[in-house]
Amino acid sequence: MHLVTGGAGFIGSHLVDALVERGDEVRILDNFSSGRESFISHHEGNDSVQVFRGDLLDPLIVSESMIGVEMVHHLAANPDIRLGTEITDTDLKQGTICTYNVLEAMRVNGVKKISFASSSAIYGEAELMPTPESYGPVVPISLYGASKIASEALITAWVGTFGACGYIHRFANIVGPRGTHGVIFDFIHKLKRDPTKLEVLGDGNQEKSYMSAHDCVRSMLHVIDLSEDGWSLFNLGTGDTCSVSRIAEIVIEESGLKGVGIEYTGGKRGWAGDVPKTYLDVEKLLDTGFVPTSMSELAIRETASALIDEIGL
Amino acid sequence: MHLVTGGAGFIGSHLVDALVERGDEVRILDNFSSGRESFISHHEGNDSVQVFRGDLLDPLIVSESMIGVEMVHHLAANPDIRLGTEITDTDLKQGTICTYNVLEAMRVNGVKKISFASSSAIYGEAELMPTPESYGPVVPISLYGASKIASEALITAWVGTFGACGYIHRFANIVGPRGTHGVIFDFIHKLKRDPTKLEVLGDGNQEKSYMSAHDCVRSMLHVIDLSEDGWSLFNLGTGDTCSVSRIAEIVIEESGLKGVGIEYTGGKRGWAGDVPKTYLDVEKLLDTGFVPTSMSELAIRETASALIDEIGL
Repeated sequence: MHLVTGGAGFIGSHLVDALVERGDEVRILDNFSSGRESFISHHEGNDSVQVFRGDLLDPLIVSESMIGVEMVHHLAANPDIRLGTEITDTDLKQGTICTYNVLEAMRVNGVKKISFASSSAIYGEAELMPTPESYGPVVPISLYGASKIASEALITAWVGTFGACGYIHRFANIVGPRGTHGVIFDFIHKLKRDPTKLEVLGDGNQEKSYMSAHDCVRSMLHVIDLSEDGWSLFNLGTGDTCSVSRIAEIVIEESGLKGVGIEYTGGKRGWAGDVPKTYLDVEKLLDTGFVPTSMSELAIRETASALIDEIGL
Repeated sequence: MHLVTGGAGFIGSHLVDALVERGDEVRILDNFSSGRESFISHHEGNDSVQVFRGDLLDPLIVSESMIGVEMVHHLAANPDIRLGTEITDTDLKQGTICTYNVLEAMRVNGVKKISFASSSAIYGEAELMPTPESYGPVVPISLYGASKIASEALITAWVGTFGACGYIHRFANIVGPRGTHGVIFDFIHKLKRDPTKLEVLGDGNQEKSYMSAHDCVRSMLHVIDLSEDGWSLFNLGTGDTCSVSRIAEIVIEESGLKGVGIEYTGGKRGWAGDVPKTYLDVEKLLDTGFVPTSMSELAIRETASALIDEIGL
């Protein structure tokens, strides 16, 4: 049995699909705060998929969800990085403390394996681009990034102290169908409100590594199969980047709208804690034989098309 | 006004002494769980030293302690690394969550500067020795180390998001008078119980960087004076190491006891989560002109002598 926390969410629901497809039994633990019934409803009637509705901040529910589990895929988190600047304990609670609850419930219930969705946000404004896994010091500038490195460290402490096995994945910006946050999602909603103009936060030169949710869950499962004990750490991405201004162009192209004016709010960041440039070094991943199906721009274009269908314009 | 959290504790009380000596006003915030009245009683009657008795887990008390403060020296933490293996939320609460409470109280009260006692424990079992600040990935194997990197990341997130100024100090093993934990303290208590033999956890080959509490607080204040904004990060240590078996010899020599048999429990670690070897690269510190007064062995010998006086044999 595989437990997927946040399994009704964006990346989580794609992972559930991949696990079901390869024949695994799956238990979803989700509080449906950003997860949605519609993201997992296609598994209804499938006995190999269980849904536990509950909050990871409740240790009892987390412990109950561990029964019979061989591996935890811990994807639940606050998906909105900007929220951390307004309610400052959001990421501490939904990130760090929930990860502690998961690890402690694993320890008590004898569950040994955890796969964890970390983030390129842990690198902050790295001086080395592309940025490899060995880059240091890690200096996140967002509260979201801080909760991700805190969770990574809890996992390696559990490995070192209690003999757990941890797979840490540092995600690029993951995009795809069922996205509920992020720049593409925001742009489509802005165009829905006003099809004549598109406001872009910052100067548009922000540039980041993107990866499709499809490739993301493929690479997670690929990496998990490579080792059996201790901790492993991989950047998961495609090896290139895309700028925010290029994303704006792609979204407008996919929308079919004509004459949309792009307006920049200016400044190098979209918001306080936004990292203007991230560029993940994914040589370690590619050296294992993993091949992404879409590079950043294609992943963005396919996502724009899928989200325009989901959201409607 | 300087606020020192954990100011009645081991390193905290030495820092209070140093701040008072240079003429600063000091407020101590301590719950006296491991801090002691006797460590600060020599400041009684000195109007420039205030004592707030309270727990950092109470946000109201932390916020009240910030009034009129220009800089926070955040030294409060669980001092017993081994305890984290028994009560697994000890370091999460007394480390990570307390640091969050301090930072949030700073934000609300407009306090901008924080100096933080981090630890070489964040490096875990580093593959590079001596280990510089830029070493990565940081993979702590103790829950204590996990809470220290989590706290560092909260501080840099606060710097990046809210414009705070953070001084992060990654301490070697700090030893000196008023020590309440650690290997020298343990050895003296063991000899007090049985002066004929000394039990050493592990094989005695564990080897770590040590620094005197006197040099530690000198180097903290030295580093703080080097910059005025953003974050700064320094390993604080002396640039050499000492083995646990050598510490056992030194403690026995300082005790004056004759014919003490040293017994090793065996294994390369003292306990689960213990890092067998730490060796801090302190070139960055030494390049700023800081000169330690005692290298590791001398710091250990002076500490053994002082603690034997304090504890009695």
